[in-house]
Amino acid sequence: MQSVLIYSGGLDSTVLLYYLRDAGHELRCLGIDYGQRHRRELGSAAEISRRLGVEYRMADLAGLRPLLAVGALTGADAVPEGHYNDESMKLTIVPNRNMIMLSVAIGWAISLRFDAVAYAAHAGDHPIYPDCRPEFVESVEKAAALCDWHPVRILRPFIEKSKTDLVRLGAKLGVPFALTWSCYKGGERHCGRCGTCTERREAFQLAGVPDPTEYAA
Amino acid sequence: MQSVLIYSGGLDSTVLLYYLRDAGHELRCLGIDYGQRHRRELGSAAEISRRLGVEYRMADLAGLRPLLAVGALTGADAVPEGHYNDESMKLTIVPNRNMIMLSVAIGWAISLRFDAVAYAAHAGDHPIYPDCRPEFVESVEKAAALCDWHPVRILRPFIEKSKTDLVRLGAKLGVPFALTWSCYKGGERHCGRCGTCTERREAFQLAGVPDPTEYAA
Repeated sequence: MQSVLIYSGGLDSTVLLYYLRDAGHELRCLGIDYGQRHRRELGSAAEISRRLGVEYRMADLAGLRPLLAVGALTGADAVPEGHYNDESMKLTIVPNRNMIMLSVAIGWAISLRFDAVAYAAHAGDHPIYPDCRPEFVESVEKAAALCDWHPVRILRPFIEKSKTDLVRLGAKLGVPFALTWSCYKGGERHCGRCGTCTERREAFQLAGVPDPTEYAA
Repeated sequence: MQSVLIYSGGLDSTVLLYYLRDAGHELRCLGIDYGQRHRRELGSAAEISRRLGVEYRMADLAGLRPLLAVGALTGADAVPEGHYNDESMKLTIVPNRNMIMLSVAIGWAISLRFDAVAYAAHAGDHPIYPDCRPEFVESVEKAAALCDWHPVRILRPFIEKSKTDLVRLGAKLGVPFALTWSCYKGGERHCGRCGTCTERREAFQLAGVPDPTEYAA
């Protein structure tokens, strides 16, 4: 199968990259700059793709930032620290981010005459991110089958997996975790305090996999 | 109702702008630069919005052009001339254009806490543009209702109307047709020969409405 992977350079999508490669997919990686505070993640995406010899392209959507300027990732709110709760995680929602990223990836897949677009939504995202819910993805799947005479499938094999499952799977597949980037603050090192760093740390602990990440705190 | 209109500055979406305004909508207009050869249309969109006192914003997606570089609007093919047939009109397809535009407009509508996104797909588009078919729009409607905790509706009141119907309706609503832009070649004047100019001319003739467009040929 020939697939375009929506690839942020984070832990989840890097595990997906290794998973699809292991399953024999011909891959292209698509990074998306939507003006996120932590666009540093895209450097990880480019570097890991390069090491695997997989073509990586970046879609520059930074011009959308003024239209999507709410919350902590693209707006003026502070990135929440500590374990996510419903309210703090909601601050990290970027309006309609997944439909925007999927639609661009589908467009590229059509241009390439590829079969599918893959993205790394996982079960830990569902309660807060509405655009990671299975029923959302199902409606986009239908749209992707109809949007062109060349239909495109949406692959989201991790939608029922936890982040802990992904760390275990990544360890088996030889994912270079130290090269991946999760922190929403986007500094030199992982802050160790934001909700995403907290989740990352915990997933390694629960999975019983050594965490190679350098945290500032 | 508060609605974001996907607004190209062309005939169809200008009629929709006047139609929604007449129906009492509070509106924002969104132009999309996706690297189209005829991005001159966006000047019409800005000017007509300004005259109506409606806020107009442009989403700069020109960086996507390398990913969507097929066909005549964003790729290297020549813009087809004469009356469209199936094959020539297919050359004017931009991969997944409507899902990309709708997803960005939905994102902006969520940021504004608006109710709806409107776009001007009409019946003449269906046979060739897969992403103007009612079943495509229905799947995006479902996605738009699920992509955020704030659901957004998709309005496409012209989906069963012909371009001739739109010219008649626009004439009733006082649409300044001379300010709108259709030509896919994007020169100084409408070329009068490309498929879109041919359709525009014919729609005025069939509607019995004087055509104020200056055509080069």
